[in-house]
Amino acid sequence: MGKNKTKFNYPPFVMPVSLVGANVGGKPNFEAIAWFNLVDYQPNLISISSEKTHHTNKGIRENKTFSVNIPSASMAAATDFCGVYSGSKVDKSKTFDVFYGELKTAPMISECPVNVECRLNQTLELLHGEVFIGEIVGVYMENKYLTDNKPDTRKIDPLLFEGTLGSYWKVGEHVAKAFGIGKNYKPKQSNDNRE
Amino acid sequence: MGKNKTKFNYPPFVMPVSLVGANVGGKPNFEAIAWFNLVDYQPNLISISSEKTHHTNKGIRENKTFSVNIPSASMAAATDFCGVYSGSKVDKSKTFDVFYGELKTAPMISECPVNVECRLNQTLELLHGEVFIGEIVGVYMENKYLTDNKPDTRKIDPLLFEGTLGSYWKVGEHVAKAFGIGKNYKPKQSNDNRE
Repeated sequence: MGKNKTKFNYPPFVMPVSLVGANVGGKPNFEAIAWFNLVDYQPNLISISSEKTHHTNKGIRENKTFSVNIPSASMAAATDFCGVYSGSKVDKSKTFDVFYGELKTAPMISECPVNVECRLNQTLELLHGEVFIGEIVGVYMENKYLTDNKPDTRKIDPLLFEGTLGSYWKVGEHVAKAFGIGKNYKPKQSNDNRE
Repeated sequence: MGKNKTKFNYPPFVMPVSLVGANVGGKPNFEAIAWFNLVDYQPNLISISSEKTHHTNKGIRENKTFSVNIPSASMAAATDFCGVYSGSKVDKSKTFDVFYGELKTAPMISECPVNVECRLNQTLELLHGEVFIGEIVGVYMENKYLTDNKPDTRKIDPLLFEGTLGSYWKVGEHVAKAFGIGKNYKPKQSNDNRE
């Protein structure tokens, strides 16, 4: 039994894509990054990986702040624009309406339904990438993206990205509530000792 | 202009969910983890964050290997089961058909459309979590999940997770090709110097 190894060394993950914001030389810049995620809680930490040579990295090193903005699927072209062109060649500061939060130097995008403001906690240097771990200082959202005072995935409609083919996707059907559907699940061969 | 900060400190990201596999005391164990992503290339590195006290962590420390398995949406209940119960209390070794690759100690799940075999590269200790960074040694997939020899997102049908409400989702409509749609995008106020 078992499977054969493929020729691929890059897995086909469907990830959300973010627009990471930083001020570079006092000017807002945004980079499309799918390599981000949460890494710890209390304090809540978020990690982003960006190639060391990238323009955004300069701004994060300079101010020790950055933002993670979640574009909706309708913002695919603007997001891709920020992934295709480097801030070293194209001025992206006027691409969006920009606002600042309490850190004052982490530019956030008004058009994005979710904005996460981060203070740099630590940096991990890898061979090509620089992993910036930020402490979440604030999450900004307009009321129109909430239902019963909670974030509504349908309304946010986040843009997803798959990297082996380079494709953008939308979120589809709701499947189930988490931390519930598995409680009564019985594996084929069960030898557990749940009560 | 600008937005108000919400009362949330946890952002509503829609992430893929993985089943991370490790042998603990010689026995396969699987933990549902949405906090993972790629962090570097050549060599391709993947990062997962798991609470230090978790059972899976013992196995990763022990063998310096682990796997990241991508369940399809149809595996939501089994995935949730692996997120709800700890391997310290429930024996999850018989939950799936398990196979091993070239590292011999990273258990992978036959039922999952995508299996990523990893050799531990480094560990970053945070306050609650332990971030394991693994080098990708192999990506395992059956041909039925490929189209024209490339991974097919529709066939893989990965399970997604949103953490503020604790909900599972499916991937929906295809939006556009990446690294293309943005090339001719014109920001509202453009002052770039593209040719």
